[in-house]
Amino acid sequence: MWDFLFTNVHLATMADGYGEIRDAAIAVKDGNIAWLGAQADLPPGAQAVTVHDGGGSWLTPGLIDCHTHIVHAGNRSDEFEARLNGATYEDIARAGGGIMSTVRATRAASEDELLRQSLPRVRSLLAEGVTTIEIKSGYGLTLESEANMLRAARRIGRDFPVNVATTFLGAHALPPEFAGRADDYISEVCAMIAPLAAEGLVDAVDAFCERIGFSHEQTERVFQAARAHGLPVKLHAEQLSDQRGAELTARYHGLSADHLEHLSEAGVAAMAAAGTVAVLLPGAYYFLRDTTPPPVAALRAAGVAMAVATDCNPGTSPMTSLLLAMNMACTLWRLTPLEALAGCTRHAARALGMQRDVGTLEVGKRADFALWRIARPADLSYAIGLNPCRGVVNAGVLRAPQV
Amino acid sequence: MWDFLFTNVHLATMADGYGEIRDAAIAVKDGNIAWLGAQADLPPGAQAVTVHDGGGSWLTPGLIDCHTHIVHAGNRSDEFEARLNGATYEDIARAGGGIMSTVRATRAASEDELLRQSLPRVRSLLAEGVTTIEIKSGYGLTLESEANMLRAARRIGRDFPVNVATTFLGAHALPPEFAGRADDYISEVCAMIAPLAAEGLVDAVDAFCERIGFSHEQTERVFQAARAHGLPVKLHAEQLSDQRGAELTARYHGLSADHLEHLSEAGVAAMAAAGTVAVLLPGAYYFLRDTTPPPVAALRAAGVAMAVATDCNPGTSPMTSLLLAMNMACTLWRLTPLEALAGCTRHAARALGMQRDVGTLEVGKRADFALWRIARPADLSYAIGLNPCRGVVNAGVLRAPQV
Ligand SMILES: [Zn+2]
Ligand SMILES: [Zn+2]
Repeated sequence: MWDFLFTNVHLATMADGYGEIRDAAIAVKDGNIAWLGAQADLPPGAQAVTVHDGGGSWLTPGLIDCHTHIVHAGNRSDEFEARLNGATYEDIARAGGGIMSTVRATRAASEDELLRQSLPRVRSLLAEGVTTIEIKSGYGLTLESEANMLRAARRIGRDFPVNVATTFLGAHALPPEFAGRADDYISEVCAMIAPLAAEGLVDAVDAFCERIGFSHEQTERVFQAARAHGLPVKLHAEQLSDQRGAELTARYHGLSADHLEHLSEAGVAAMAAAGTVAVLLPGAYYFLRDTTPPPVAALRAAGVAMAVATDCNPGTSPMTSLLLAMNMACTLWRLTPLEALAGCTRHAARALGMQRDVGTLEVGKRADFALWRIARPADLSYAIGLNPCRGVVNAGVLRAPQV
Repeated sequence: MWDFLFTNVHLATMADGYGEIRDAAIAVKDGNIAWLGAQADLPPGAQAVTVHDGGGSWLTPGLIDCHTHIVHAGNRSDEFEARLNGATYEDIARAGGGIMSTVRATRAASEDELLRQSLPRVRSLLAEGVTTIEIKSGYGLTLESEANMLRAARRIGRDFPVNVATTFLGAHALPPEFAGRADDYISEVCAMIAPLAAEGLVDAVDAFCERIGFSHEQTERVFQAARAHGLPVKLHAEQLSDQRGAELTARYHGLSADHLEHLSEAGVAAMAAAGTVAVLLPGAYYFLRDTTPPPVAALRAAGVAMAVATDCNPGTSPMTSLLLAMNMACTLWRLTPLEALAGCTRHAARALGMQRDVGTLEVGKRADFALWRIARPADLSYAIGLNPCRGVVNAGVLRAPQV
């Protein structure tokens, strides 16, 4: 006896390529997918406590936003406005703006306050069928404040119908108290991993490897500390320049290298060999008016899995719509609509090391899925600013799109 | 005795520049704004049937989407997908795609069906604080089918909490039955105006003046017919090339010239002299990956009022978020956040000739306004994919953002 059964749906299982099954049904038991297939193939005598008529909806895996900085305090609309009124980056830095303004606001916020400010952003994602969100630290830059961010992230996963994967990003920026002492700060970051991991706050470790972030060598020190604690790594790599960050990540069998606008051929090859996912972040590219796209054709040709995420953050991608990230990946970088959908399901799961549990519709996987009032899956990438989500199932629990 | 009063709000009246009034109140009677000002200045003894505590929300004029093709049947996600899978425009035309696929679907749809298919798009706009929508015909291209579209548009205004301004756009594309006989089709379009206007279906007349649309001379014939019926004109002008469409529109004292990526200095000057509004449509620019921005600095310098709209249409801007259009106008074209907000309120009202009724918060104007949970008005342009709308008043009737 199944807990519930959806009939009269079309499935995009994303399990084997696109995995279209028309006129299908899907059954859930104990929070997992118990059966799926063409409705005509339902086992004789199959029974469920509840049967939902999907009304011809499409049903996809729940969407996964695999790269966000969604937990933070304040926003930076004042800077956005100042720049559009003619202020230079220098003017803004002199006025205390930039990432350090977010660090100040986040350090000053309690865990409750961080949660309160982050929830409208989280709700915006969840309303669009998102069932898994990765959340990074990186605006605290002290053990206490990084822990605060990660605890707020864990609470989102406990209190709301969403799986949360936490990523420790202590090596996001150099805090002012370490000015001129980046190596010392990296030592501090490495030392933070043990207590944060002991508290169960770290699913992966990340860094910002860039001329304006941390060097290749400093990044490797962070990766070594992560490895010493058995934690997987990922990296903000090659966004503004080629630091060979993707190759470093591949060497550490990293889950993903993210951004990648300046990725070299060697980087593509290294990622392909290591099975490291390319996480594409079109929101930052759009917001920064970048003109160098990531090497999508080369990644595709090399068989590197491409994920797509919002990069939700106050400075370079104040974006809280994963469907819009899909549209931007297609419009700006020429991903196909099905690549974009795989990028927010199957490949996003791999970017978080969660591919055994989520990301595709397969028997035994967690019952995380979204129902859409659309004519075909490409509609999800095509529309700009429309939310056709009509229902979400998270771990076997059905909810309406508004949470 | 007022019908209701909002207290504890901050106003952006948009009446005189930006018109910020902090710690304000606004009163409504008989569907109009009866009073507004600093709460401390409320007249002694002022009373209202209902008092709403705005909880520190910002309150702006209801947003106005002054250029849409939101009523149509079908979508074109199949083409979007085909192009991303390598099909050329020629392949798509051979397969019956392009605007003619929307014409076929629209001609085949009943008024009820048009309404049914358009409502999710309309609801998406309304959820973001939109209280006025312009809706064009232009996918029927016969008297009967254009009337059908405009009747569906009027019904949206009757049945939903939104003001609808209708625009007759018979000169949108050449229907196949007139292939090679564009002048004959223009005669047909001119002849459609009388019966459509007699039925009360036409608030303005528009055309697509472009190498792939209609010529300057054909456009002028349409404008003359509009003038003969006392109807104001507007124009799809200078999107892909300079056809001197804006100058023509200015000569006819047109309400607006729209798109304008290829507008000349002479066009800017003519618009400024005539008071013709520049309607900027960043969604189409984004979706088509255009690289020639409209001359925003020149328009600003000349004092041309700039409006911002979605251009919601299935072929070149499948966008149903006016807030996102504001973000794109700022991000891609460097409008300031307050210019973008004026572009969706005060200037959008002028682009529809409705400036006496809507577009600003002023005593005597229609009580159309939106409440926003934001820290400052710039937040509306800054966020990408977030909807902070917490309530809407349309003609004095309060509704929650979800309709
Ligand atoms: Zn990031
Ligand atoms: Zn248009």
